[in-house]
Amino acid sequence: MDNSSSNHPPSPALIFQTLQAHHQTAALKAGIDLGVFTAIADGAVTVDAISAACAASPKGIRVLCDFLTIMGFVTKTDNRYGLSTDSQIFLNQHSPAYMGGIAKFILDDELTTPFRDLTAVVRKGGTTLPDAGTVSDDNPVWVEFARSMVPMMQMQSQMLPELIGGDVNRPLKVLDIAAGHGIFGIAVAKKFPNAHITALDWANVLTVAHENAVAAGVDGRHTLLPGSAFDVDYGGPYDVILLTNFLHHFPHAQNVELLKKVRAALADGGQAITLEFIPNDDRVTPPMAAGFALTMLGSTANGDAYPFSALDAMFRDAGFSSSTLHPLPPTPQSAVVSHK
Amino acid sequence: MDNSSSNHPPSPALIFQTLQAHHQTAALKAGIDLGVFTAIADGAVTVDAISAACAASPKGIRVLCDFLTIMGFVTKTDNRYGLSTDSQIFLNQHSPAYMGGIAKFILDDELTTPFRDLTAVVRKGGTTLPDAGTVSDDNPVWVEFARSMVPMMQMQSQMLPELIGGDVNRPLKVLDIAAGHGIFGIAVAKKFPNAHITALDWANVLTVAHENAVAAGVDGRHTLLPGSAFDVDYGGPYDVILLTNFLHHFPHAQNVELLKKVRAALADGGQAITLEFIPNDDRVTPPMAAGFALTMLGSTANGDAYPFSALDAMFRDAGFSSSTLHPLPPTPQSAVVSHK
Repeated sequence: MDNSSSNHPPSPALIFQTLQAHHQTAALKAGIDLGVFTAIADGAVTVDAISAACAASPKGIRVLCDFLTIMGFVTKTDNRYGLSTDSQIFLNQHSPAYMGGIAKFILDDELTTPFRDLTAVVRKGGTTLPDAGTVSDDNPVWVEFARSMVPMMQMQSQMLPELIGGDVNRPLKVLDIAAGHGIFGIAVAKKFPNAHITALDWANVLTVAHENAVAAGVDGRHTLLPGSAFDVDYGGPYDVILLTNFLHHFPHAQNVELLKKVRAALADGGQAITLEFIPNDDRVTPPMAAGFALTMLGSTANGDAYPFSALDAMFRDAGFSSSTLHPLPPTPQSAVVSHK
Repeated sequence: MDNSSSNHPPSPALIFQTLQAHHQTAALKAGIDLGVFTAIADGAVTVDAISAACAASPKGIRVLCDFLTIMGFVTKTDNRYGLSTDSQIFLNQHSPAYMGGIAKFILDDELTTPFRDLTAVVRKGGTTLPDAGTVSDDNPVWVEFARSMVPMMQMQSQMLPELIGGDVNRPLKVLDIAAGHGIFGIAVAKKFPNAHITALDWANVLTVAHENAVAAGVDGRHTLLPGSAFDVDYGGPYDVILLTNFLHHFPHAQNVELLKKVRAALADGGQAITLEFIPNDDRVTPPMAAGFALTMLGSTANGDAYPFSALDAMFRDAGFSSSTLHPLPPTPQSAVVSHK
């Protein structure tokens, strides 16, 4: 997406291409929906074979596979198609890292509606969805989210427990706020064999976290706490409270109120660990983290992609003593560790 | 769009970014709709000033301008925004080359509807729009098209007359099929002072061609021929027949029938000059020309981006003796000159 560094003579080409960038989204979604990547992985490598495997017209498959080739998801040699490395790993349904399901979430009709008239969103300064947008109570979109976002967060979930210091065998009480799929708390439970995780989310979403805890063999140390993070009694005190991909949905003042509640539930010496898309103070770099602000503008009333300085201010305003920033390359996300 | 040459470790990032590529389209459209580029050109360079000039919320303008910066259309230094060279030339309404109007055409609701469910389009092998899609008779989308596509075709229109050989002062009868904005025929009229142009298109579209002929001072040598290229009597014989951005809407057999009619209307020694997005035989390079096939799949029943070999076959099947390919860099299009 970052074209700012390119040096080219004046040309309408970039404008034209950007006005058609939605074709890229549509084509990748169609490839996933039709199972094109899985068909190719299974050995259907010609237009006719893919067409038969996917129950789609040869003309449509030819044009789609060519477009997927142009985008780099598919290869084409002598009219035979193959998969890119990314597609083999992430778009083949037989791969353990299959992530085609995120298309359902990312392109959920409700989530994409505001982007069909982003002009109205910009005028208003927040989502044009009714109520609070996607953060309304028990919104079923989060069940889909919980199921489909696991592959996107796998790498972050492996890195986050490294930020918790001390002996891995010590007892550790952990609150996983807005647990969703639960994989962040579960990763902590796997690294710390005497950790106990309390996973907080809406009841419908927690069924997914529970499934994942069972699959990971940590369900004996994984308790469900259904409700809203703003309303439910956290219990505690906790040694660690996880806030993963949560604060970006809300404005500063609402986050400060939440963080006061988080701080009150922490044991002395406890830490809050936040995972976010965190742009630099210029809010335009790095591109993925900075660009996430538009996703929040369109899908929430008052959410944002906060620079570290803004997150640090929230934690200070809530009474935390200090926060430190931890980029998590190669993921586009960063963590913030805040001390009570 | 072309990511095939990039070498990166396996990562879900490209998949995630592509599923959100429609945000790029939405953001550029919002910037155009709100007049953000014109506001910046007029000296509103802070969030508050742009917000006031565009009657939009400061939050929305900040997030939008940051996103436009990430994409390279806007610059940001010390919280002051500026325009990229492309934006100064093509997106500032005060610029003579302003092309913001093409957003109206490219993102016309009718044109984009099939891309919201491209899966259905691929299954079917053609547009899911009713009737013949955008090529239905007198579709008003082509009036919008005629008005807005001029800046996109300016460079091609300057190059195309160079392909007509001979003394520029000789009399020249030219038929401009599907003239639209008329600028191709008008460009020929300007280079050949004794040329007479007959511009064929639906009557509503020809009003735009006539306006442009008057503006160029060639309306005395520019006759309007309203109707469908498939039905109307061409008259003739003509020395040159222009077929610009027309054949891609139709299948081979229909084009062959049309080209027989074109050939019959040509004088001995006459030539047909075709302008198209013409991919290589692999149909995946170069990216813009090859990617145009998806636009045709979604918006027409049987259109395509034809390689030169396919166009050459059409002309031969219609009785033409020979055709030659003429790339028109730096534009993404090419011309084909075919001899009777």
